[in-house]
Amino acid sequence: MEVASGADQKEGTMNRGWGRVKAFPGKLKKLGKDDPRRIIHSLKVGLAITLVSLFYYFKPLYDGLGVSAMWAVLTVVVVFEFSVGATLSKGLNRGLATFLAGTLGFGAHHLAILSGQKGEPILLGLLVFLLASMMTFIRFFPRMKANYDYGLLVFILTFCLISVSGYRDDEVLEMAYKRVSTILLGGFTALLVCIFIFPVWAGHDLHNLVANNIEQLAFFLEGFGLEYFKTSDSEDDESNKTLLEGYKSVLHSKQTEESLAIFARWEPFHGRFRFGHPWKQYLKIGSLTRKCAYRIEALHGYLNTENQTPQEIRSKIQEASTKVSSESVKALNELAMAIKTMTTPSIAILHITRSKIAAKNLKFMMNTELRKESDLLEVIPVVTMASLLADIVSCSEKIAESVHELASLAKFKSVKPEVAAQRKPSLRNAECVHEVASVDKFRSVKPEVATTKPSLRKMQSYSSINMPQSHHVITVE
Amino acid sequence: MEVASGADQKEGTMNRGWGRVKAFPGKLKKLGKDDPRRIIHSLKVGLAITLVSLFYYFKPLYDGLGVSAMWAVLTVVVVFEFSVGATLSKGLNRGLATFLAGTLGFGAHHLAILSGQKGEPILLGLLVFLLASMMTFIRFFPRMKANYDYGLLVFILTFCLISVSGYRDDEVLEMAYKRVSTILLGGFTALLVCIFIFPVWAGHDLHNLVANNIEQLAFFLEGFGLEYFKTSDSEDDESNKTLLEGYKSVLHSKQTEESLAIFARWEPFHGRFRFGHPWKQYLKIGSLTRKCAYRIEALHGYLNTENQTPQEIRSKIQEASTKVSSESVKALNELAMAIKTMTTPSIAILHITRSKIAAKNLKFMMNTELRKESDLLEVIPVVTMASLLADIVSCSEKIAESVHELASLAKFKSVKPEVAAQRKPSLRNAECVHEVASVDKFRSVKPEVATTKPSLRKMQSYSSINMPQSHHVITVE
Repeated sequence: MEVASGADQKEGTMNRGWGRVKAFPGKLKKLGKDDPRRIIHSLKVGLAITLVSLFYYFKPLYDGLGVSAMWAVLTVVVVFEFSVGATLSKGLNRGLATFLAGTLGFGAHHLAILSGQKGEPILLGLLVFLLASMMTFIRFFPRMKANYDYGLLVFILTFCLISVSGYRDDEVLEMAYKRVSTILLGGFTALLVCIFIFPVWAGHDLHNLVANNIEQLAFFLEGFGLEYFKTSDSEDDESNKTLLEGYKSVLHSKQTEESLAIFARWEPFHGRFRFGHPWKQYLKIGSLTRKCAYRIEALHGYLNTENQTPQEIRSKIQEASTKVSSESVKALNELAMAIKTMTTPSIAILHITRSKIAAKNLKFMMNTELRKESDLLEVIPVVTMASLLADIVSCSEKIAESVHELASLAKFKSVKPEVAAQRKPSLRNAECVHEVASVDKFRSVKPEVATTKPSLRKMQSYSSINMPQSHHVITVE
Repeated sequence: MEVASGADQKEGTMNRGWGRVKAFPGKLKKLGKDDPRRIIHSLKVGLAITLVSLFYYFKPLYDGLGVSAMWAVLTVVVVFEFSVGATLSKGLNRGLATFLAGTLGFGAHHLAILSGQKGEPILLGLLVFLLASMMTFIRFFPRMKANYDYGLLVFILTFCLISVSGYRDDEVLEMAYKRVSTILLGGFTALLVCIFIFPVWAGHDLHNLVANNIEQLAFFLEGFGLEYFKTSDSEDDESNKTLLEGYKSVLHSKQTEESLAIFARWEPFHGRFRFGHPWKQYLKIGSLTRKCAYRIEALHGYLNTENQTPQEIRSKIQEASTKVSSESVKALNELAMAIKTMTTPSIAILHITRSKIAAKNLKFMMNTELRKESDLLEVIPVVTMASLLADIVSCSEKIAESVHELASLAKFKSVKPEVAAQRKPSLRNAECVHEVASVDKFRSVKPEVATTKPSLRKMQSYSSINMPQSHHVITVE
């Protein structure tokens, strides 16, 4: 039935509407469960507003400020944001802009009075027009927009209110004073509640977001191998595929990271973050992580074209490519963990080096094993998959480098030797786990290189050793 | 010299500061040149504020509204946005929220009076706390945040102001009335100026953004072939590489597209856009375009690893891959043009089909030509590049399908037959341009299929013909 009767349609709409209403409490619950800080934030806003409205309830307080007290309520509602950084940024923007515009407005008011009764409205109108236009235009500056957009808006607002209303109200100075003081009052109330009751730090969120994004990449790579080389269609196939799509959030995290970094810069010393923490470096890591995620997006496409390459061809490079991804996974997981615990990553570069060796191994495997296949067409998707995997290894290396940079900029603690020893399989042990593969172009790593501590510099030079030529393939495990 | 003296440092900072100040007018000029609508918008804001402040200058108008007139100025400053849709969205949110919260606040005020002099502030405080907390929590809903964030903020604000200030001011009804009417006044002024003086339509911007993004993909593909297969390092190498990076803006366009789509929905009939234009379909096209851009990002990586594959190997597949990209370029350009001119794309699917055939041709070329190479390792990057190119073809096909969907949803005009004939090389002609290639698994397209008009359905079935098997490769030009 293509054309529904009017009554049917109406009923359908009502049912859908009722369904949404019924689903509402459930959604509310989920919203709170996903991030309980949301509930706390809501209660904090309620508290701050109630505190400020006390000025209305208590006669002595009210008599001092009068109707202007409403500016305090207004300020709390407008300024109170989720994170401390955002609240500070908005509050300081509002405070400073009000003060500057108030002063300027007061000046304009006096200038206008000098120009006589007829000239006054004309001059004021002209000033308001010029200033509002100019400030609106300046708001288009990307840098201004990012940091001072709200301040510029409040500047226009206050200037217009003070200079224009001054035309009627000769007590313009008192008005300006009251406005500034009530805004300060509201701003401080909002800030105190925001900072001292379960504070949410934008910097902390950025820190975790960047670490989690790196983890998402590792999570995908871990699942990808299983999914790509799986032999049977298991039942939880669909749920696996959904799980593998976690990396997609990384693709679109640019704006979130950037605004968190802007807010973080306003935040004072807190927890392990000092003032002047290198927030910009997080953006660099984030952008490299996204670059890696773009490769993963391309790789993800090869999960759905599995019927192109027969299972037996794929299985030939299964071990080698699983090795590549598992080493990258270890590296990425250690990098994420290093950020989270604020310690210098100790073995990530080692894993990167291993995964690079594994990637070369994989290429040799393809050269020897896949050449035997009669039909190159069947091999192409596998080759592409393997190349993308190798691309991801080099992306991971860049991420590792930038995390090391962060560690030195932010003076992350180095892990104590005994802890590090527990956490990392030393290169010495690794040497023993040689494995002879069918590839004959590898050379074992020189012992003197292998026994040195895996510091960033050394690991890099280690990883840039040219194509090895002996008979042994090192599978550093 | 690593440690600069204090005086030196100061001078350096001052010089940098002065440099920035000197660069400022130039930057302002560039900002206006990049989008002259910014200048117009700034002047419009100045005009609207000046108009509203007339209420202060003229005594009869001022006497009616009193100090409340400042709400009108405030509303204009806060509500006036760049596009009509954003202004409408903010204005309606503000108007409706003020009305609802004013009514509710008035009710709360009366309820509080009933509870006696001691109970009044307690009850009011409780109500304010509950409502502010609840509304703040609802702001976390992604859907609410996207559409009604500002409305919810104003709701909290107005409710608090009306219900709380009512405790002192018994003329609460008059205050509510004045606030609503001045907000309406300010809102209407902003809207009228925004709509009737050089309006900027969010819908129009979204429309152009989506078309331009598709064009960016075409632009990259066009340049990629030249850059990848170029034989000599020309002088304008660096500038070429910069030009090729235009697609990068596509990667991060999600948020912009989504907010434009939200604003577009508020906009009335304008130009060729009717009310209820399928804005959601633009988001679909946009997301497919981004998917394609992710592949292009992976492909872009192969421009810098050119030393991996010798030129003579690459040149073997030059013609075939240039064919793939040039057909995709034509298809994407036609799709972008179709959106821009709001006409049904007529030959994009034809080009897609050709590029698919060319992609298959390319694969066969690789199978025959590249197999002869002794070292598969040298071939791998080329194979990967070609696979990514083929991926892009299938991405382009999806974009084409979604543009066709848009064309039918938004009832785009079909191009008149005579115009279409000029614009498209017909399939009949194409048949004559057979070309014998070294691939021996192709079958020419059946005449009855080839002579039909290239409607979407038919072209799809045409393109899904299985691997051809005759001796001729069709290079439909």
